[in-house]
Amino acid sequence: MPEKVNLDEKFGLFSAPWTPKVIGAVDDYEIKIVRIDGEFVWHAHDDVDELFVVLDGEMTVQFLDGDVSLGSGELLVVPKGVEHRPVAASECKAMIFEKKGTVNTGDTESDLTVAAPERL
Amino acid sequence: MPEKVNLDEKFGLFSAPWTPKVIGAVDDYEIKIVRIDGEFVWHAHDDVDELFVVLDGEMTVQFLDGDVSLGSGELLVVPKGVEHRPVAASECKAMIFEKKGTVNTGDTESDLTVAAPERL
Repeated sequence: MPEKVNLDEKFGLFSAPWTPKVIGAVDDYEIKIVRIDGEFVWHAHDDVDELFVVLDGEMTVQFLDGDVSLGSGELLVVPKGVEHRPVAASECKAMIFEKKGTVNTGDTESDLTVAAPERL
Repeated sequence: MPEKVNLDEKFGLFSAPWTPKVIGAVDDYEIKIVRIDGEFVWHAHDDVDELFVVLDGEMTVQFLDGDVSLGSGELLVVPKGVEHRPVAASECKAMIFEKKGTVNTGDTESDLTVAAPERL
């Protein structure tokens, strides 16, 4: 039988912000967790949607035409091709669901790019 | 810009157990929420994995070779083709992520079958 995943336990295994970790997969889609803290880079994912689910804390996803602020128990789907930038004034824990191979910085090369996220 | 979804707000729109509601989509995958209460039916989804994320309460996913109990902040991926049965002694709120068109009772026809879940 399959093994369950405890989110707090997985978050206990890393502390750096902007370093997504893969904690599971559904077909060709991956479940990731990430610590969001500070300002990310503007980017888009040309071919794939991206789901953010806020688990703890608060974050904002900036778009070219406005901001969406999210708290614990809220989620947002960033549609494919849409420029966006996640930011957080203090650390926010989030779960991400997106197609395997999706790079965190999308079409923007950056020091924050994690091409092959670690599997926890 | 896209609209956020508040999970508590969506749960406030229905009360019946075992009636999954679609609250969003990521490419061809759907985000659903469901109230789990009592015993579901044994079934499998031949071609698709299924993710359960427990938001509130406790549930158990029974397998032919054992049970997996999940509390708030825990998740489980049921692999494609694996017989399983979700149960809960009292109401449990869960989020589901699975391919669009996945029927809740899989290969088992039942009074609990929801072929076309409502979009909230």
